[in-house]
Amino acid sequence: MPRTHRRNFLKLSGLSFLPVLSPWNANAGTGSAATGEPVKEPVVKFFADGELYEPAAYIDLLQQLSASTGITRDRYGTGGAVEELEKKFAAITGKEKAIFLPSGTMANQLAIAVLSGNKPKVYLQDLSHIYRDEADAAQSVFGKRLMPLAMGETYFTAADLQQAIESLKSNEVFESGIGAVAIENPVRRADGRMVPIEEIRKISSYCREHNIKLHLDGARLYMAAAWSGTGIKDYAANFDTVYISLYKYLGAAGGAVLCGDKTIIDQVPHLQKIHGGTMFTNWANAAMALHKLETIETVLQDVIKRTTPLFAALNKINGINIRALEGGTNIYELNLDKAIDGKKFQAGMKDNFKILVAPPNENNRALITVNETLLYRNDDYMVNAFKSSIAMK
Amino acid sequence: MPRTHRRNFLKLSGLSFLPVLSPWNANAGTGSAATGEPVKEPVVKFFADGELYEPAAYIDLLQQLSASTGITRDRYGTGGAVEELEKKFAAITGKEKAIFLPSGTMANQLAIAVLSGNKPKVYLQDLSHIYRDEADAAQSVFGKRLMPLAMGETYFTAADLQQAIESLKSNEVFESGIGAVAIENPVRRADGRMVPIEEIRKISSYCREHNIKLHLDGARLYMAAAWSGTGIKDYAANFDTVYISLYKYLGAAGGAVLCGDKTIIDQVPHLQKIHGGTMFTNWANAAMALHKLETIETVLQDVIKRTTPLFAALNKINGINIRALEGGTNIYELNLDKAIDGKKFQAGMKDNFKILVAPPNENNRALITVNETLLYRNDDYMVNAFKSSIAMK
Amino acid sequence: MPRTHRRNFLKLSGLSFLPVLSPWNANAGTGSAATGEPVKEPVVKFFADGELYEPAAYIDLLQQLSASTGITRDRYGTGGAVEELEKKFAAITGKEKAIFLPSGTMANQLAIAVLSGNKPKVYLQDLSHIYRDEADAAQSVFGKRLMPLAMGETYFTAADLQQAIESLKSNEVFESGIGAVAIENPVRRADGRMVPIEEIRKISSYCREHNIKLHLDGARLYMAAAWSGTGIKDYAANFDTVYISLYKYLGAAGGAVLCGDKTIIDQVPHLQKIHGGTMFTNWANAAMALHKLETIETVLQDVIKRTTPLFAALNKINGINIRALEGGTNIYELNLDKAIDGKKFQAGMKDNFKILVAPPNENNRALITVNETLLYRNDDYMVNAFKSSIAMK
Amino acid sequence: MPRTHRRNFLKLSGLSFLPVLSPWNANAGTGSAATGEPVKEPVVKFFADGELYEPAAYIDLLQQLSASTGITRDRYGTGGAVEELEKKFAAITGKEKAIFLPSGTMANQLAIAVLSGNKPKVYLQDLSHIYRDEADAAQSVFGKRLMPLAMGETYFTAADLQQAIESLKSNEVFESGIGAVAIENPVRRADGRMVPIEEIRKISSYCREHNIKLHLDGARLYMAAAWSGTGIKDYAANFDTVYISLYKYLGAAGGAVLCGDKTIIDQVPHLQKIHGGTMFTNWANAAMALHKLETIETVLQDVIKRTTPLFAALNKINGINIRALEGGTNIYELNLDKAIDGKKFQAGMKDNFKILVAPPNENNRALITVNETLLYRNDDYMVNAFKSSIAMK
Repeated sequence: MPRTHRRNFLKLSGLSFLPVLSPWNANAGTGSAATGEPVKEPVVKFFADGELYEPAAYIDLLQQLSASTGITRDRYGTGGAVEELEKKFAAITGKEKAIFLPSGTMANQLAIAVLSGNKPKVYLQDLSHIYRDEADAAQSVFGKRLMPLAMGETYFTAADLQQAIESLKSNEVFESGIGAVAIENPVRRADGRMVPIEEIRKISSYCREHNIKLHLDGARLYMAAAWSGTGIKDYAANFDTVYISLYKYLGAAGGAVLCGDKTIIDQVPHLQKIHGGTMFTNWANAAMALHKLETIETVLQDVIKRTTPLFAALNKINGINIRALEGGTNIYELNLDKAIDGKKFQAGMKDNFKILVAPPNENNRALITVNETLLYRNDDYMVNAFKSSIAMK
Repeated sequence: MPRTHRRNFLKLSGLSFLPVLSPWNANAGTGSAATGEPVKEPVVKFFADGELYEPAAYIDLLQQLSASTGITRDRYGTGGAVEELEKKFAAITGKEKAIFLPSGTMANQLAIAVLSGNKPKVYLQDLSHIYRDEADAAQSVFGKRLMPLAMGETYFTAADLQQAIESLKSNEVFESGIGAVAIENPVRRADGRMVPIEEIRKISSYCREHNIKLHLDGARLYMAAAWSGTGIKDYAANFDTVYISLYKYLGAAGGAVLCGDKTIIDQVPHLQKIHGGTMFTNWANAAMALHKLETIETVLQDVIKRTTPLFAALNKINGINIRALEGGTNIYELNLDKAIDGKKFQAGMKDNFKILVAPPNENNRALITVNETLLYRNDDYMVNAFKSSIAMK
Repeated sequence: MPRTHRRNFLKLSGLSFLPVLSPWNANAGTGSAATGEPVKEPVVKFFADGELYEPAAYIDLLQQLSASTGITRDRYGTGGAVEELEKKFAAITGKEKAIFLPSGTMANQLAIAVLSGNKPKVYLQDLSHIYRDEADAAQSVFGKRLMPLAMGETYFTAADLQQAIESLKSNEVFESGIGAVAIENPVRRADGRMVPIEEIRKISSYCREHNIKLHLDGARLYMAAAWSGTGIKDYAANFDTVYISLYKYLGAAGGAVLCGDKTIIDQVPHLQKIHGGTMFTNWANAAMALHKLETIETVLQDVIKRTTPLFAALNKINGINIRALEGGTNIYELNLDKAIDGKKFQAGMKDNFKILVAPPNENNRALITVNETLLYRNDDYMVNAFKSSIAMK
Repeated sequence: MPRTHRRNFLKLSGLSFLPVLSPWNANAGTGSAATGEPVKEPVVKFFADGELYEPAAYIDLLQQLSASTGITRDRYGTGGAVEELEKKFAAITGKEKAIFLPSGTMANQLAIAVLSGNKPKVYLQDLSHIYRDEADAAQSVFGKRLMPLAMGETYFTAADLQQAIESLKSNEVFESGIGAVAIENPVRRADGRMVPIEEIRKISSYCREHNIKLHLDGARLYMAAAWSGTGIKDYAANFDTVYISLYKYLGAAGGAVLCGDKTIIDQVPHLQKIHGGTMFTNWANAAMALHKLETIETVLQDVIKRTTPLFAALNKINGINIRALEGGTNIYELNLDKAIDGKKFQAGMKDNFKILVAPPNENNRALITVNETLLYRNDDYMVNAFKSSIAMK
């Protein structure tokens, strides 16, 4: 596809609410026919962490970025798009420095390792990614003892933390040292529910008073920011380190960013190297995330603006009930009337309307994740899709 | 990815000596003019590990691959182009299984960790990457004691190894266990010189007799294979694990592959995860390496075929002497006559001929690395460039 | 004190129910006056893990052992009394091999390290010594993740264990491996309560079926054996490794023994060495434990035989209630009537009768640990002491 | 322990050149005959690290200490004789604090671990105990990379160290951090030869300038002090931590002491605990070392005073040549004339004179270690023994 065509299209589109260089816009024009590719149709995905580009779309987008703004190569994490991204994230989070890392697990683990030093105990949520989904890396590689709080719940309070720490003396004979506290926000295993900012502030105060370092696993922090109205920088101000994922809602094919004070982040490259995480280059991931960062806040506000009237409209349909989770972000609960065939509903949405929904469970309940793909279709299309699909027999 | 498509495409291109989808071919058409980009010129790089694509060229090449054969997305190291690459490398090395890893350091370290188990001692070359250039990862993360052999030399012999192991009893009181032996081949810090295959075979025999596992750091193994005539599989047969870099001569923007028996490689994903090396996707790196693998052996043979007459022609020029290193691969020694101004020579080559050479040292000596970029220009062009540049005043 | 005198005394004493060479017997004769030492009086200690000898008494006892049977020096854990002790414990526990270690923490940690290999998860009681009282050694030194079961309770059941293991799949994304299960029995933090042998057998069966290794922290296993009637060997048969303390009820000034299969115990000396636990000699600790092992079972049976009628007699006293703990061993609960002054009671027992009791708490409750020191006094003396002391105003 | 009592006792004994409470003095009376034990004879040991008491002698000596000055029990390293010993060693070395540890390996390893923090590189002598005789503990447990200097020689110079550190930049790509420097003095594997104090001072200056911590493995530091004339405190002043063995020349059955600044030593108990080195009590080892410390310097001076004339007298015997090692301490070289039967000489010394010598090698050469046992016999007895034994046929 000739670049000029695409450029013109983009100029004309005027769709400020959309990641401007999205492949579907590009393919919606006549250009796509010209390439001989099968015409792609926009797919609304009511699950997953934003648009996850397939290779062809990803490459198209990269090429547009390269053509429009240029992409500079990094080298072992230095220079180029990676350095640009790091500076961008330092500014976004209000921290002195940021570093690109290949995975969220590495970001979380190295943050904890640096913050806790020789002290093994690290308090965190029972449901957190670090506790449940990092294969016991903290214990087996970094010699940490993770101390779960708030069993099965979204978050622990400052009082919970204080109580846990104060009870140590009576519960254990030997002091081994409290290394750090980590908070995941929003919490994936709690269906994206948030930790209230007031509680974060209390925890942060307590930690600072007691000289305990505090890490934020903000893999999906932009969701919390958009749904709570608290800014990224306001969240970050409470923490010593903040990790944000690059492939969740930020379009990259992989990678993570860890932000914090210079003295902390300066310790990370050596650890990254000895754990094998220093890759030759990552300019593509960095360029993609840089691109999406330009619009992510606007896009998410647009999603929120669309969600409210859309779900109100859908709730007027007999047999459909969608409601927000308490303290939730972009994940909603869909309940279908018993009379509706959940499987056929799901199949109808997919086959006839290119709308992907998780399969309803035995109670005809499913979670609905809203993201930028919602913007691909208007309300009428959506309402019609639901109406039509719940009628499938 | 349908193999036939790619094959047909390659067959039709008729450019067997060139990485067919090179950006310069792509840009050679009118398309580049149409984009308004400055027309790129081929650059011969007499250093560096093959063509290192700048982002624009890299993306163009990826797009051609996507258009011609399609690229399938992986997910946390499973499926898609990554899995295809792993299968390809298993076949190339004759091993049961292969795994993509983000860095050569991770490949080397995890190989050693798995092969050595609880035993700390690992013998290797004093000049090896693992000993000198992995930031003491083996010791500080994996609890290994690296035992350097062949101080300052390219390789150790089986006799050296045997002597070192047998002298342990008199040199140390407590047996701590010999975990593994690692060989780098070719050796970067020895200017790409090779370990003779006969010596490798003897070392391998000794290790097998004594039940010691053997790892090959073959980051640039293709160079050894091309210059020695010993095949990749023949090298690999002597080792329990083999690491090959994806961004050295294989075009990827990053990544490594580790090959070995299923029982060994199956232990790697857990270690990769807990060390933070499990990225979301790596299909781009995998697709690029898959592409370059198709032609690497042919390309390198073409490079060798070109190098001999070219260097003979250059050696006829007064003041220029180029010679192969003893036991060397693609790195040669260039000596300029004292009367020649080395700096001006280098500048002339670069500015007037787009040929990059390392700056000659105080003895007017420089190393010349030959790689696929040599194929961008014919002998006349090259000879003229040298002639003209040594005359710069 | 001339050795002949002591020997004669011992010969004459005929006190089969007592550790024959106890210093108090020795000092009870005229010999002690002859040495000019202040005459020692037997002290009944209703707390603590058996008789803890003060240096003078300890040395006297050692000297008697040296004179009577001789003590042979070990050297870095080999030979002499240490080797003799190890063989003795192998026979006692029915295991192939045993090894002396400087501390129970080292015994527990090395057992777990060897049994679990590279797998991090180790299930154990929430109240166990390994979980609570080893300063997070398992996590920070050995890379283990301790998985507490039976929160705040004496023991977990086989069903608890099975449920915990089976729920892993839904609770965590990445399998990191179940390394071992550890059981403490009896449980110090549960006031010496026992894990029922039937439950141990079920847990052992489950573990063997699932190829999970099982460790017994039997620091005070002799208490469980004496109070349950299950023999040491019967307990040990359910476990892969068994640790027994040498300074709890076995008189040594320090040390521990770990027993298990030869293939397991043979891995321990190297770990002991690299963790700094290989001492020059330990013949004194070994000799003392060897000595006490000869009579420990008889002594404990004598203690039990004395406890029943004694506590029955004490319970007839107005204001005194002593009762066994459910599932308990040698720790009993003493409840004094509100009217009694607990502090004065304690002081009276100590000052007037040389009977040491823990200070009653705000509810006039105290725990009473019975041990060999009970045998120093007859029932009349004891009953009189209690009667007199509760009357203190 | 009342110091005055012990002092008075020692003063009264009048045997300033002898460890006053030696078992042979004790047994020299009629008491030993009374026990029916075979009368012990003093044995001169021309090897080994001082008098290594057999259990019976050790217990006798302990009992005398207990009777004369009393011994107080410690508890998990706190209080009693252990604390007294720690204070004594702090005073001896001029350091703020000292700590008892079960082994020299633990003392060396924990010192290095604390001094080096997260930095892996530790420079030391190739022949040092830490490098050769601690089973790779530094690497496998503490994540250190030991950097041997002075291959096969007694010591490295400050210039060697500086050169090694400065060459790092050209030898390795990634800086991993220089954690500490360790010096063994005297050097066991160099037959007790010493590091010159001037060199130690230069190394210490260099390290302080470059903020590198310095550890002294002074297992046998008293030998260096006695033979060099440099005091223990003068040596210690150059180091951040100093380890001295308790069972080499200090009579204990095991144990070590580590001395240093309070901020350093205060980090040790936690590490000691998690590595399993916190024993219940060690009062016996502490009491014995405390006792020997009272006289060690005098005794060693007496040994030196005796050695000079004795070896002069022996060298007058035809066929015997004894000479000091260059830079040596208490180890000398004995050369026998070829005509002498080395084996018969050794047997004669042992059987007829109770003098133990190492077996001469194929060149009729043996090392002679002088220690306090030399004081058991006078010169005439010794000269006669040598004369008579070299004549054995």
